[in-house]
Amino acid sequence: MTDVDRILAGDLRAMARAATAVENRTPVADALLASLFPHTGKAAIVGITGPPGAGKSTLVDQLTRRLRSQDKTVGIIAVDPSSPFSGGAILGDRIRMQSHHADSGVFIRSMATRGRMGGVAAGTLEMALLMDAAGRDVVLVETVGVGQDEIEIARLADVTAVVLVPGMGDDVQAIKAGLMEIADVYVINKADQAGADRLELELKAMLQISPRRGGLEVPIVKTVASEAQGIDEVLGAVFSIRAAKKTDNAVLWRLRLREMIRERLLDRLPLGELDDAATEVAARRQNPYTVVEQWLKKCGFA
Amino acid sequence: MTDVDRILAGDLRAMARAATAVENRTPVADALLASLFPHTGKAAIVGITGPPGAGKSTLVDQLTRRLRSQDKTVGIIAVDPSSPFSGGAILGDRIRMQSHHADSGVFIRSMATRGRMGGVAAGTLEMALLMDAAGRDVVLVETVGVGQDEIEIARLADVTAVVLVPGMGDDVQAIKAGLMEIADVYVINKADQAGADRLELELKAMLQISPRRGGLEVPIVKTVASEAQGIDEVLGAVFSIRAAKKTDNAVLWRLRLREMIRERLLDRLPLGELDDAATEVAARRQNPYTVVEQWLKKCGFA
Repeated sequence: MTDVDRILAGDLRAMARAATAVENRTPVADALLASLFPHTGKAAIVGITGPPGAGKSTLVDQLTRRLRSQDKTVGIIAVDPSSPFSGGAILGDRIRMQSHHADSGVFIRSMATRGRMGGVAAGTLEMALLMDAAGRDVVLVETVGVGQDEIEIARLADVTAVVLVPGMGDDVQAIKAGLMEIADVYVINKADQAGADRLELELKAMLQISPRRGGLEVPIVKTVASEAQGIDEVLGAVFSIRAAKKTDNAVLWRLRLREMIRERLLDRLPLGELDDAATEVAARRQNPYTVVEQWLKKCGFA
Repeated sequence: MTDVDRILAGDLRAMARAATAVENRTPVADALLASLFPHTGKAAIVGITGPPGAGKSTLVDQLTRRLRSQDKTVGIIAVDPSSPFSGGAILGDRIRMQSHHADSGVFIRSMATRGRMGGVAAGTLEMALLMDAAGRDVVLVETVGVGQDEIEIARLADVTAVVLVPGMGDDVQAIKAGLMEIADVYVINKADQAGADRLELELKAMLQISPRRGGLEVPIVKTVASEAQGIDEVLGAVFSIRAAKKTDNAVLWRLRLREMIRERLLDRLPLGELDDAATEVAARRQNPYTVVEQWLKKCGFA
């Protein structure tokens, strides 16, 4: 039995080995992912993003419990935002997820973005495809919605839920610009707190002014994740949007291919040539624009 | 007189036009930057990064005042971290910089990262090179050190100062992993507050355990930016490091070329081909790994 067969059969140890290969971007990972790809497309890849403190981890925890109670298998990818300034708190959140660690129906991996030059979004997508091929019904991708990379990651999911909490006040205007384009569902968490209704009204007003491209309605769901309230409603909204978006798969794959090309291209730039060019440019004997154009021409992209 | 000549002569209106072209990545920008490149390499490109609330904008303001009092011209690039959740506060900070707006010796531009797919670091570098060609003596690039993109931007500067404040406590351990590799100078701002000495000791201990590659010492400078204390010391440290690092220019240009290639490649991907491939992949008739390999082979990168 090959590792591909083992993964397709949902073997946890083979999945863990493959996940490590994907994380470390070994050559084995590409071959494995290529073999697994035809078996993907069944899992719902769901991005969960939002500001620090919105209760994303608690929500992911509750969604997982509910899915497990329906006998669905779950994959969780926790993307560490690589921010040197918030690492601590986020790792703390993650500890809660260990409540699932004895359940073989929940496969959890975290992706560190720290120190990677690009490629986080592509790596996260590949981890999700691996879990998909291994037969996970739902893959939850949790990212802190801070920084462009993290937003790109959310963009690559089938469906993206943006989690907000009351009391953000005027920030809604700021949120609008950044997250409007990626939010398929809004979750107002901690909806028992003052200001939840106001936040809902603001989101509704915002959606009326600039409705989502493609005409799909963006539902707003209220939750109190810490008390398991509203969880079914979130799942209902996510699955019905996924069904409605199915036809958009080519658009999604266009974004995904871009990310994959970007990551691999940077991994494979011929280092000797790059070093030589850098030396010439640093000495101002060559123009970086000429160098870059030459490379692009070689690729037929000029 | 061409726009290139005008920019080389430091004409502010020509600079403003070129900056807008760079920001919008118009084809004109590339031609302009290619013509300007041979005239770059004189300005000191200085990255100023650190957590929100560390007083980066105040420090940039004070560094600018000091440089102006020495008759040096200054360019400032304020990189908006594109976080939908912090936009407000940061824009507030920027308003302070308007105190320089009547001084033609200070040229300020902000770079929005929001909504851009990659390419922020490359765009920021190009803006800095434009200011360099226009004869600015110093270009200060202010970024919030949150998120991988923002860290990459800092990495492309000639010299990077990481601004910290007392009271971050245990976070120093977290900072270590993320910023160690990019910090050329540490600035302990708000050094009149309790905990400044402790922070200094922790940084020193940290630097002893893992000294900077290349053997260059990483100075620690204390400032109270709001009272203009320690500003000369920061400038002194920055300029002496820049002189010492000069030989590393090829290493820096290797990173910069990578960023430029990444941005341009993504801009120039043949959209028709990409769309066709995406449709095939979405239908699982083609394997994304095969598609990506074919592209890389064409570029000679396989």
